Amino acid sequence: MSDTISPLARPFPMMPPIAGVALHTVRAGYKDWGRCDLTYVELAEGTSVAGVFTRNVCCSSEVELGRQNVGQGQARALVVNAGNSNAFTGYRGREAVEAIMDQVSAHLHTPREQVFVSSTGVIGVPLPKDKARAGIAAAFTAPLATWEEAARTIGTTDTFAKGATATAVVGEATVTLAAIIKGSGMIAPDMATMLGYIFTDADVAPAFLQAALSAANARTFSCITVDSDTSTSDTVLAFATGKAGNPRIDDENSPGADAFAAALAAVCRDLAQLVVRDGEGAQKFITVQVSGAVSDDSARRIGLAIANSPLVKTAIAGEDANWGRVVMAVGKAGEPADRDRLSIGFGGTWAARDGQPLPDYDEAPVAAHLQGRDITIEVDIGLGQGRATVWTCDLTHGYIAINADYRS
Amino acid sequence: MSDTISPLARPFPMMPPIAGVALHTVRAGYKDWGRCDLTYVELAEGTSVAGVFTRNVCCSSEVELGRQNVGQGQARALVVNAGNSNAFTGYRGREAVEAIMDQVSAHLHTPREQVFVSSTGVIGVPLPKDKARAGIAAAFTAPLATWEEAARTIGTTDTFAKGATATAVVGEATVTLAAIIKGSGMIAPDMATMLGYIFTDADVAPAFLQAALSAANARTFSCITVDSDTSTSDTVLAFATGKAGNPRIDDENSPGADAFAAALAAVCRDLAQLVVRDGEGAQKFITVQVSGAVSDDSARRIGLAIANSPLVKTAIAGEDANWGRVVMAVGKAGEPADRDRLSIGFGGTWAARDGQPLPDYDEAPVAAHLQGRDITIEVDIGLGQGRATVWTCDLTHGYIAINADYRS
Repeated sequence: MSDTISPLARPFPMMPPIAGVALHTVRAGYKDWGRCDLTYVELAEGTSVAGVFTRNVCCSSEVELGRQNVGQGQARALVVNAGNSNAFTGYRGREAVEAIMDQVSAHLHTPREQVFVSSTGVIGVPLPKDKARAGIAAAFTAPLATWEEAARTIGTTDTFAKGATATAVVGEATVTLAAIIKGSGMIAPDMATMLGYIFTDADVAPAFLQAALSAANARTFSCITVDSDTSTSDTVLAFATGKAGNPRIDDENSPGADAFAAALAAVCRDLAQLVVRDGEGAQKFITVQVSGAVSDDSARRIGLAIANSPLVKTAIAGEDANWGRVVMAVGKAGEPADRDRLSIGFGGTWAARDGQPLPDYDEAPVAAHLQGRDITIEVDIGLGQGRATVWTCDLTHGYIAINADYRS
Repeated sequence: MSDTISPLARPFPMMPPIAGVALHTVRAGYKDWGRCDLTYVELAEGTSVAGVFTRNVCCSSEVELGRQNVGQGQARALVVNAGNSNAFTGYRGREAVEAIMDQVSAHLHTPREQVFVSSTGVIGVPLPKDKARAGIAAAFTAPLATWEEAARTIGTTDTFAKGATATAVVGEATVTLAAIIKGSGMIAPDMATMLGYIFTDADVAPAFLQAALSAANARTFSCITVDSDTSTSDTVLAFATGKAGNPRIDDENSPGADAFAAALAAVCRDLAQLVVRDGEGAQKFITVQVSGAVSDDSARRIGLAIANSPLVKTAIAGEDANWGRVVMAVGKAGEPADRDRLSIGFGGTWAARDGQPLPDYDEAPVAAHLQGRDITIEVDIGLGQGRATVWTCDLTHGYIAINADYRS
């Protein structure tokens, strides 16, 4: 954790324990630091698992194996290494992951495919097998850790610990979700990576858990950006232990399926926004609301083009209502748009409508809005019913300082 | 022109006059500044024209009309307004462009379609018709201007004047090309825009001029990026007056067609690199050489993903041989790549080969290379024969200062 906390930070929420989930944190010593850096989560037998992974084709062995193993639907353990991403390390990196999976599966007498591993930190250095082995052995007997301790332990360049929780009524039972995430950029110095883990006591079939996670991902994690760069290790996993006693959710027609999916989506949205709030150098949290596109997907692409535009992000950093840069970003998105139907606003005040500046445009409320921490950019494409919301942060001297003003 | 000249600037070259091309610069007063801001170029009868334009769908009326009129193949005049981009101004902006075309076509007794107009500067403010009309009237009788004066007059946030020249032997005749360009970012504060104009005395059919310009564009202007943002007004026009007395180049089989196309491509490459050298906040000129991709186009996309990555650009700014960020950028390009065949180098020294750091990697020559002004990143995808070269600049505090530390 960095010493300087993001001005956009949120306090860690009160998070209840989840039956069937046991958290442990230990110090494996992947880096020369005095903090815990290995998180071991033991999951009850019969826990369902689902996952979404980076689309970066140069992904780590952890991602390759996780994507492969999530298909069998069951999980018994999660190991998260912080301080070494194990990415771009060839066959030795893969061997290190397989050794962890073997060690944990032997301990739990469970198939290797039910052990999930993530790593985050420096790249190009194979994860040291001896440190991992000793750390995991220690974790097997370590005392239980809190959510906040686990959230801190999976972090690297994060400036604050990030968690989210929600409940849903399924049948007669109340199910609980608790989740942690790390990340302070799509990718941060030396591949900081976004890693998110959602735990619930709900009884959910793996196929529905995957469907609900994928749907939530499309509207949450896939709608955030810090700097347009994509880590080689990004991973979000959802684990459902089935201990809540609810009628099992098999598919979207099961009782409570909608409520569970909504709670899962709410947790994913909270986690995604927390990552943006810890974006490198971020001083302002930006919500881009796109309406009137030809489809929701088109709206999302336009929103990301705006959110990834260095000129839009620097304008917000400068508290400058530069709607021309928003026009530019809409136009470069490669999606259907018509200059003469386009409207742009900030914080609820239109600056331009139907392709022209508003004659009676009052910049005072916009200027006041832009001086705040939470900024909204509204864009109406004027062509259809497609909508999307995308979240990002501004681009500041802090980003340059973090990423350029040091030598590796 | 800014007071602080880019450290990557090049002196303006000696450029010969081109028969059939008359340059004039005047002060229309589009902004409250003491410099010339209107460039009027009169072209001999029978001049061929070709053009390439921004793909931004929110393009200006100048671009819409230019794209429409370039098809008829003939040009008699070019007008470039600096200080007002006339973009996002609706029907009033279009009327302003049409008024300029009408005024010049009446003066030259030529069809309106043969008058080309570009504008660059603030957006959202219709180009003042009265200032344009008076400026153009003054230009008709103004003395001849030099290439350097014209290059300065089309500039806005540029920190130095940019020109390039070349010759080619076509049949028995030597033909000459002279060209100017402005731009200091794909888009700069308030839409600075890239505008390039190439003039030659060669006798070239419009269709071949267009084919040669489009081919050159694909390997030059389409291979540069400063910040991944795309102006709504980007325009490159080529004019051929036919005064050199060469046998007319009708198509690629005409004598000298290859030599002319090569000279045109060389001028385009020089102009494109000059824009990068004036990139906002640029301290280093970066050449990204991609080989081993599945196709040339795939190589270009990978090269642009590297050149647009904020993390790669900040690493170069920090003189940090962070090849992991290059791996990440290759992987996010969405093009075929295999982590375990990928090799990355800087300035001729490999840092990683076949997906792993080199065991005997010597960082000393790389560190020395990265301290210079001209940086090369070499990437071998290891899959095929596709190649491309892309040019960009680093991302520095200067970029943030220019784009965030002011209010519009």
